[in-house]
Amino acid sequence: MTLEPAGQLRGVFAAVLTPLTAALEPNLKPFIAHCRWLLANGCNGLAPLGTTGEANSLSLAQRLTLIEAAAAGGLPLGKFIIGSGSCALADAVTLTRSIVASGGGGALLLPPFYYKNPSEDGLFAFFSEVVQRVSDNRLRLYLYHFPHLSTVPITIPLIARLKAAYGEIIAGLKDSSGDWNNTATLLKEFPGFGVFSGSEEFLLDNLRAGGMGSISATTNVTAPLAQPVYAGWRTEKAAALQKSLTEVRLLLQSFPAQAALKEVVARLTGDAQWRTLLPPNMPLSPAQRSTLAQKLEALPQMRAVLSAARAA
Amino acid sequence: MTLEPAGQLRGVFAAVLTPLTAALEPNLKPFIAHCRWLLANGCNGLAPLGTTGEANSLSLAQRLTLIEAAAAGGLPLGKFIIGSGSCALADAVTLTRSIVASGGGGALLLPPFYYKNPSEDGLFAFFSEVVQRVSDNRLRLYLYHFPHLSTVPITIPLIARLKAAYGEIIAGLKDSSGDWNNTATLLKEFPGFGVFSGSEEFLLDNLRAGGMGSISATTNVTAPLAQPVYAGWRTEKAAALQKSLTEVRLLLQSFPAQAALKEVVARLTGDAQWRTLLPPNMPLSPAQRSTLAQKLEALPQMRAVLSAARAA
Repeated sequence: MTLEPAGQLRGVFAAVLTPLTAALEPNLKPFIAHCRWLLANGCNGLAPLGTTGEANSLSLAQRLTLIEAAAAGGLPLGKFIIGSGSCALADAVTLTRSIVASGGGGALLLPPFYYKNPSEDGLFAFFSEVVQRVSDNRLRLYLYHFPHLSTVPITIPLIARLKAAYGEIIAGLKDSSGDWNNTATLLKEFPGFGVFSGSEEFLLDNLRAGGMGSISATTNVTAPLAQPVYAGWRTEKAAALQKSLTEVRLLLQSFPAQAALKEVVARLTGDAQWRTLLPPNMPLSPAQRSTLAQKLEALPQMRAVLSAARAA
Repeated sequence: MTLEPAGQLRGVFAAVLTPLTAALEPNLKPFIAHCRWLLANGCNGLAPLGTTGEANSLSLAQRLTLIEAAAAGGLPLGKFIIGSGSCALADAVTLTRSIVASGGGGALLLPPFYYKNPSEDGLFAFFSEVVQRVSDNRLRLYLYHFPHLSTVPITIPLIARLKAAYGEIIAGLKDSSGDWNNTATLLKEFPGFGVFSGSEEFLLDNLRAGGMGSISATTNVTAPLAQPVYAGWRTEKAAALQKSLTEVRLLLQSFPAQAALKEVVARLTGDAQWRTLLPPNMPLSPAQRSTLAQKLEALPQMRAVLSAARAA
């Protein structure tokens, strides 16, 4: 395994799915089992309770329950960057505090996303309040830049102000813009900043530019293909490994993310309950299901992953 | 006062501001006092915990506290349409249930607003789950159409499906699109549906087209000017009254809504604490404050309102 510089999270992270019961509650046992499978099959760390984890569709109580279950289940939370975003300041504080108290490696924090075009001062105030109210030097905050969904970008001047005010507590950023140029600019502007790409499509580019790796929805499925890219990124094979990984990523991202990934895990585990989503997300149609299965099986590198997962 | 048909809420509603303490908690005493002032000065009903009330910036616990305080404070909750929106299904259910249990006249429900371009099936599932989990025939749900902020429109096919499934529980809609044509289309499509305009600029148009009135942020200040339009909408004076009201509305809406309205209430009450907002919303700058004050005082109809409020 790759050596990790002390104190900084690096590598391949899956934005972990949240399995649900028929009553739409987080399903804790399959959640922990899935986390273990990911850690044993290519993930250096995990990022539950983000966009893929349907965190904003879960109540505060449900999210706290999941964090506590992960800790009680013996998962290595020091390797976890856990979502704590909420439009409500008080809830973002409660979640972030719970993550620190549980030994979480980092908290992934969205900007408040209801009001549009907030001022930089307003966003600085929000993140500042979270840091100051949590008031714990163990806190490592990862800013969550996902403008397509949050509608509120994390800009370079905002990052600079936060880093100037709170130093190493502002540990990094997940760049889910899908725009490699944005990631490259961040890495040039803030050397050593913990920048993860939001897609494993940019894993190799990210590492070469001094970034930390990727935190990705599709890594719920692609982890065994992503790890060789991370482990071998300085080798000659890296580009070919990345190409093979990207092929799977591009196929998966042509489907609705949460539904497609839950569909694949449902097939692999034989547990149909995995298909359940919180509204407004909906499961794949039967036609989408079979198209997805056919297309995945048509990729040799994915066929190998699926067959190994089924055997496990 | 105007006669109201039994069981249907009508008239001038303010989307009530939420005063905050220095610790950013809901400030209950001035909240109740402001509600009383609004009801005594032109409002037929009130709509707290919406966009103006910064509801999405408040935690579930803070919102429940405000609803309980309103009930305990003796406010006529039967005339209230209270916001219960949340991206989290479980929280939307808890809030809606609390509103019904407190005797609230209606619950104003946003669509889940984090995921973009949700399917109609997904939105129907969300609203359905809320209705079915609350499972109370007293529930009157008002759909909250505010595409600029929620990014998720409430479409005519969605309304039709919900009305077909849940009848009079789907009681109405607040149209905050700012597009009168959308309101007119809804009123034509669904006669008798409880459609409120989200701006008092369209109060007279709304009433003439068969709508119920307006629920508006700026009515925190314009209530005494809006009530004569409602009370006299069938009279010859209506157009002139609406023109005078619209002039104030257009002035106010050229400022950031929550900040400007809290600024006016802070001035009227002499309570500077009213200027506090939850991030990312920020107070007006000193320059904006004086511009706003000057422009309001320059309108004779507003000067009269402000001077009467100060005397009260």
